[in-house]
Amino acid sequence: MTGALVGDSSERTLIARIRARLGASPDWLQLGPGDDAAVVAPPRNLSEVITTDVLVEGVHFDRRFVPPDAIGHRALAVNLSDLAAMGAAPRLATLSLVLPPALPLADFDGIIDGIVALAEREQTTIVGGNLSRSPGPLVVDVTAIGTVHRRKVLTRGGARPGDLVFVSGAIGAGRAGLEQCRSAPDAPPDTAPTRWYLRPQPRMRLGRELGRGQVASACMDLSDGLADALEQVAEASGVRFEIDRLLPVEPDAARWFQAQGQNPSTAALAGGDDYELLFTVPARRRGRLRNVVRRLGGLPITRIGTVARGSGVTIVHDLEAVVVGAGFSHFGPD
Amino acid sequence: MTGALVGDSSERTLIARIRARLGASPDWLQLGPGDDAAVVAPPRNLSEVITTDVLVEGVHFDRRFVPPDAIGHRALAVNLSDLAAMGAAPRLATLSLVLPPALPLADFDGIIDGIVALAEREQTTIVGGNLSRSPGPLVVDVTAIGTVHRRKVLTRGGARPGDLVFVSGAIGAGRAGLEQCRSAPDAPPDTAPTRWYLRPQPRMRLGRELGRGQVASACMDLSDGLADALEQVAEASGVRFEIDRLLPVEPDAARWFQAQGQNPSTAALAGGDDYELLFTVPARRRGRLRNVVRRLGGLPITRIGTVARGSGVTIVHDLEAVVVGAGFSHFGPD
Repeated sequence: MTGALVGDSSERTLIARIRARLGASPDWLQLGPGDDAAVVAPPRNLSEVITTDVLVEGVHFDRRFVPPDAIGHRALAVNLSDLAAMGAAPRLATLSLVLPPALPLADFDGIIDGIVALAEREQTTIVGGNLSRSPGPLVVDVTAIGTVHRRKVLTRGGARPGDLVFVSGAIGAGRAGLEQCRSAPDAPPDTAPTRWYLRPQPRMRLGRELGRGQVASACMDLSDGLADALEQVAEASGVRFEIDRLLPVEPDAARWFQAQGQNPSTAALAGGDDYELLFTVPARRRGRLRNVVRRLGGLPITRIGTVARGSGVTIVHDLEAVVVGAGFSHFGPD
Repeated sequence: MTGALVGDSSERTLIARIRARLGASPDWLQLGPGDDAAVVAPPRNLSEVITTDVLVEGVHFDRRFVPPDAIGHRALAVNLSDLAAMGAAPRLATLSLVLPPALPLADFDGIIDGIVALAEREQTTIVGGNLSRSPGPLVVDVTAIGTVHRRKVLTRGGARPGDLVFVSGAIGAGRAGLEQCRSAPDAPPDTAPTRWYLRPQPRMRLGRELGRGQVASACMDLSDGLADALEQVAEASGVRFEIDRLLPVEPDAARWFQAQGQNPSTAALAGGDDYELLFTVPARRRGRLRNVVRRLGGLPITRIGTVARGSGVTIVHDLEAVVVGAGFSHFGPD
């Protein structure tokens, strides 16, 4: 197979290579890949959560430093992260691959391997998909469907004044990892930020626990960065966010930003690709959150501020104001 | 807006332009576009049919002669046609648009208009989607979900020896229309084939009737041409197709093929983009098919052959054998 390209294979051959990699079918999959469409039994007494997100070569990844399995991993992870942000458990996904003929067949296999490995770990069944050739960049488009109890859906619109504001994990690693890869595209360093950038772990369990226990009042994932997420949730909820505590910037990322002459908090706020969750919790549910944190064992959950009346986002941290975006106001010595 | 490009607009502005075009939400749509994902109540007592299909500029359409609304129409139509081939009624769809920044904003609007017009006509709710920029060609990727009674799913695998083979409508128009457009890309003629090529009408009602009444034993749409569909259904069903009757080649398309020195039947067999349905009917259910034909009023349904034991596809028509693909054998004076 050395040197073989996608363009040398028929669509049927490529589909067979995908099918050979898929795991066992759950019993709700009534008809899997191979016909005009897949047929599934819908979930009972649950709502379905549907999301679609795409990775485009040259926009969302650079093949010089993102290995094939990481392309596949990220293509599914960005969708699963959206499900997590809704409090949903993943169930199935479809793949649409738009392939330049010069893509090595080994890379094609690697992309599928990356998708399938994450799908198996997160119990997501690949029910079907589509292949197309293209004169342009590689495009990996995924639609994912999850399930959630209707009353336990997490939206962006439920934050209320007085709620506490939290973020999971650490921020800034996505951006720092990308910058580190770009600084040495042919041999990116193996650091915590590059590992996170290449293979982010969507916060599936946290999202489900926050919804199931009706812990969070609003939730969103950080695909486009914390600053963007704060702005979106504030707008959707009709509230103002007051961010007045230290942000949990990933330590290696913080060092990297400092070495580049960037303010770590500012860089981490503006950086995307973190796939952590931003969420708000009514003060009276703090105890429930504590139980969730205990059950998750090890995932840091950091309070970063409070929900207030008004609109926009006010950020005061590190005794320094950061102004991001039109909706933001600022305090402090800047 | 004259001269404005997609690249001049923010993602939020583009999403707002899409949302302004969407119709009313059905009550099963619990959360529509605007959050991390859409939330829907699943259908009751029905299976879900899931399909995904993509249009890539330069592969599936040429912007010189496919107007924006036709790009949108076709992107949804190819997916709805897959649902029709399963006997399913459409319910919802997601859109993923990968956009070159130089795409005129008016063309973006036109693409959405084309999708929305067909979606409304076929009662398909657009529940969400995703926008991405791209350095490459325009990509319109759609995932569509329909519903069907589990026992009334039409697959490719149910054809049995003795069944009768039918095709809906007329074939060859998709290919002839494309050839006519290519022959005059700056001013394609307004003919029946070009109209069909640009805005094919998926056979939603026929598919549903064939499934609902348990009329057809197997079904597939002609997205890649009749020859391909015959081969696929024969293989999936473990039977041989004997095609021994005149094929219903669209008359304008037949004249076009003749004028180009091509055999009309051969060209129509090999041509794609017809989106008609190929289906098989057990002989004892001929009466049911007659009732369906009567109810559909006007859509030609043509018997083109019989299902036999064996494998592959045997084609004898026009007193002339046509050999297409590896699985085919041939008879007659050729």
